[in-house]
Amino acid sequence: MCRLFAYLGKKTTLAPVMLEPRHSLLVQSYQPQEMTSGLLNADGFGVGWYHPRQDVEPFIYRQILPMWNDVNFTEHLGRYIESTCMLANIRSATPGQAIQLSNCQPFRWGRWLGVHNGFIENFRETLYRPLRDRLGDVCYTMVEGNTDSEHIFALFCNEMLANPQLSPVLVLRQTLQTVLTLAQAWRVRVALNLVFTDGTYLLAARCARPHPIPSLYWWQDAQKCQIASEPLDNSDQWQPLMENTLLLMGANSEPQLYNL
Amino acid sequence: MCRLFAYLGKKTTLAPVMLEPRHSLLVQSYQPQEMTSGLLNADGFGVGWYHPRQDVEPFIYRQILPMWNDVNFTEHLGRYIESTCMLANIRSATPGQAIQLSNCQPFRWGRWLGVHNGFIENFRETLYRPLRDRLGDVCYTMVEGNTDSEHIFALFCNEMLANPQLSPVLVLRQTLQTVLTLAQAWRVRVALNLVFTDGTYLLAARCARPHPIPSLYWWQDAQKCQIASEPLDNSDQWQPLMENTLLLMGANSEPQLYNL
Amino acid sequence: MCRLFAYLGKKTTLAPVMLEPRHSLLVQSYQPQEMTSGLLNADGFGVGWYHPRQDVEPFIYRQILPMWNDVNFTEHLGRYIESTCMLANIRSATPGQAIQLSNCQPFRWGRWLGVHNGFIENFRETLYRPLRDRLGDVCYTMVEGNTDSEHIFALFCNEMLANPQLSPVLVLRQTLQTVLTLAQAWRVRVALNLVFTDGTYLLAARCARPHPIPSLYWWQDAQKCQIASEPLDNSDQWQPLMENTLLLMGANSEPQLYNL
Amino acid sequence: MCRLFAYLGKKTTLAPVMLEPRHSLLVQSYQPQEMTSGLLNADGFGVGWYHPRQDVEPFIYRQILPMWNDVNFTEHLGRYIESTCMLANIRSATPGQAIQLSNCQPFRWGRWLGVHNGFIENFRETLYRPLRDRLGDVCYTMVEGNTDSEHIFALFCNEMLANPQLSPVLVLRQTLQTVLTLAQAWRVRVALNLVFTDGTYLLAARCARPHPIPSLYWWQDAQKCQIASEPLDNSDQWQPLMENTLLLMGANSEPQLYNL
Repeated sequence: MCRLFAYLGKKTTLAPVMLEPRHSLLVQSYQPQEMTSGLLNADGFGVGWYHPRQDVEPFIYRQILPMWNDVNFTEHLGRYIESTCMLANIRSATPGQAIQLSNCQPFRWGRWLGVHNGFIENFRETLYRPLRDRLGDVCYTMVEGNTDSEHIFALFCNEMLANPQLSPVLVLRQTLQTVLTLAQAWRVRVALNLVFTDGTYLLAARCARPHPIPSLYWWQDAQKCQIASEPLDNSDQWQPLMENTLLLMGANSEPQLYNL
Repeated sequence: MCRLFAYLGKKTTLAPVMLEPRHSLLVQSYQPQEMTSGLLNADGFGVGWYHPRQDVEPFIYRQILPMWNDVNFTEHLGRYIESTCMLANIRSATPGQAIQLSNCQPFRWGRWLGVHNGFIENFRETLYRPLRDRLGDVCYTMVEGNTDSEHIFALFCNEMLANPQLSPVLVLRQTLQTVLTLAQAWRVRVALNLVFTDGTYLLAARCARPHPIPSLYWWQDAQKCQIASEPLDNSDQWQPLMENTLLLMGANSEPQLYNL
Repeated sequence: MCRLFAYLGKKTTLAPVMLEPRHSLLVQSYQPQEMTSGLLNADGFGVGWYHPRQDVEPFIYRQILPMWNDVNFTEHLGRYIESTCMLANIRSATPGQAIQLSNCQPFRWGRWLGVHNGFIENFRETLYRPLRDRLGDVCYTMVEGNTDSEHIFALFCNEMLANPQLSPVLVLRQTLQTVLTLAQAWRVRVALNLVFTDGTYLLAARCARPHPIPSLYWWQDAQKCQIASEPLDNSDQWQPLMENTLLLMGANSEPQLYNL
Repeated sequence: MCRLFAYLGKKTTLAPVMLEPRHSLLVQSYQPQEMTSGLLNADGFGVGWYHPRQDVEPFIYRQILPMWNDVNFTEHLGRYIESTCMLANIRSATPGQAIQLSNCQPFRWGRWLGVHNGFIENFRETLYRPLRDRLGDVCYTMVEGNTDSEHIFALFCNEMLANPQLSPVLVLRQTLQTVLTLAQAWRVRVALNLVFTDGTYLLAARCARPHPIPSLYWWQDAQKCQIASEPLDNSDQWQPLMENTLLLMGANSEPQLYNL
């Protein structure tokens, strides 16, 4: 289990949106409130962001320390880096998945960034090899760590590559269905809350088999769209994403919901 | 606030005494039960131990990661290192005291090791300079970090050097009184739970001004002496150390208690 | 390129054999003399050792810092840990292979430890997937990092599992031939200097296609066997291992050489 | 010994000025050419920079790994961070001065950043305490590590505070004279190459007692001012700073040289 966060909207530095709210990611790292497993999110973290003015690949910064102990991030980068689109993850490592940068999120593929909160039960002994075997060489080679999360992201990228005619929403649905089908065949539990972005919209999913499904909230107003595992403040603008649902949010459009 | 632990007794590897009990240091790092401030002890840790057969300076191993994320320690060193006397500390850093090895405990001076759980309120702006100014050049130079804990240990070493005719119990009492007097003059709160050892006995103190005094427990049976901020299991052999008390425990003698 | 070292002989602490000689691993990390590529071995390191008295799995200690900057190791563990058999590696990372513990050597499988110095050219894009595909599920799952070195070790373990009737020398020869054949098919260069051990003997190989073959030296006297990428002192007991040769050394037997 | 670098001029990202030149800081970290002691600059590094548009305190990013192993910096932050004024240091640690963030440069005090290349011989046993004792409480408390470099910076800040009527050039001269006088009294060697900046000009010094004085170069053209321990490319615009000289460079003025 981890906590994830995504922002798309007016240009801002990272600190006001993810470090300064009352129940910020910083607080969620040592005192989360809606974890369905795990107690903390102290096994590293990462942020990804897009350049606010240039059309270049997004940037990532990852760290194996708890977020609250990284002064580079909390005191300097958080108040320097600014963007119109950012993704973050604070990690609660599944036992057996090593504490190392390549297992920290977000993952990146070209213009895409992705974060995942959840798990594939007993991943190394079950879906690990079947998922890898489905990847074409490009996405097979791009995997650097050994988490379930990275393999789910790689499968999405693989399907994007293989189906350029499909919309990302359809590709994501197909990706999730592949994972769910495999999970059923191997009789393992999965939880697949995630947010992927190319910098222009946020694409999220909330899904798990069987219950309970970890929490996921979204927010959209005229200024910004946000998605988070737990609301960062007590505003009632945060609303839970329905279970087994995909959500697409962009800057100048209504949020769209799809059944999985 | 931190959690500390000390062991003196039959030779053993570290794991059975500090990693495997039901409420081990590993568990206390993410789920402590008697903290008076702070929520976790995830800001690094350290252990010190004496060679079981050779008369050499004790060894220390320190780390800035949470204990549960250091596979070198939990999977390898913990089951290899063995000793008749060991000291450990899991750290809950005071804000503003950096996460770096030199701020991790135990501290070492010749044959002595020391750990401290507590704080000097607003240390950098209050007792930091007065305490340093009391140190002779030897102990002044030996300070490597900037924690209150290390300065208390340095003051003890300084008093040992200056008063070779006094027993360590008397030197410790004098050290604590110096800190308490300074704290009163500067009107700052202090908590001074600590264990010092030279490998042949454990010397502990439990003291704070004003209340509450953080918890400290001890255990003595025919096999071993132990001291801990929190009992590592639910045995009723753990008994609270009385407040404002010094405790001296050795392998072949009755535990001795002294008023501060 | 890395520098590797192996020791089998009278019980000793690590420091005198690997840290204190005039051209120790510590020196080889910042000033190696026989590197065929790379300038330093400062991208982490690791040691593995067997318990000197108990029949338990060997221990490993790995670190991503340069060896000279790890005070835990150079000042404490190096003079505490003792063994009759130890393996070490100081790393010079191939660009693109991440600096993380799981990419530091030695690797371990049950009672076996292994270190490798060399490379498979352009590994991720060439032999990475073919090598993984040859692994049975046990060894497939055991791979934690993404180096060529770990995959060579995993292939050896895989062949050991699949051919319990064969001697480790024969299995190693077969493993190397598999890699060399694949390399030829993919037209990539390989360098395969390595030492594997189960704690009772050292099994080494020196081989590369095409030339030059990185250096590898061995030493055997009544007290000990040693293998190293570079001699640790200027004794003339160090002799170069012939190219394309396997070497088997045990405590009470003559060293045996085999053609690849 | 370290290598330092400073830039003041047209807004740029960090990468083109410090990571991409032929003899960049990245190269100088593993293959410096003009070191008078030490072989490498692999004991951590740091950069400081000013916000290109806002009047806020400068930012710093520090790391204990060799620069070439920090993918966050080389692949992401280096191409994202942009400024009109930046300072950098790659560290070659003096033995006994710990590898930890607080010992990495640059140091910061309000709007000021500083880097130092050199040493005070046997610092901990000689000028450490005398220098600290000269500091007022503000600057005494601001010291977080235990390097000679940080104490020189703290002394400069202390003199700035105490002499608000003096120009930074005069304060720097006075600071250096204090250190040189103390060094003479204690009969220790010192090397004091440094660059301090408030974001609007670069203030440098090259000085040592006795010879040799480590190298320091400067560059000024219409676009930018630069200072470096070693030229980052083979342009003949790099000129050595004369020994025992102070240099003041600003964006729209002629460089000014002062005798120490």
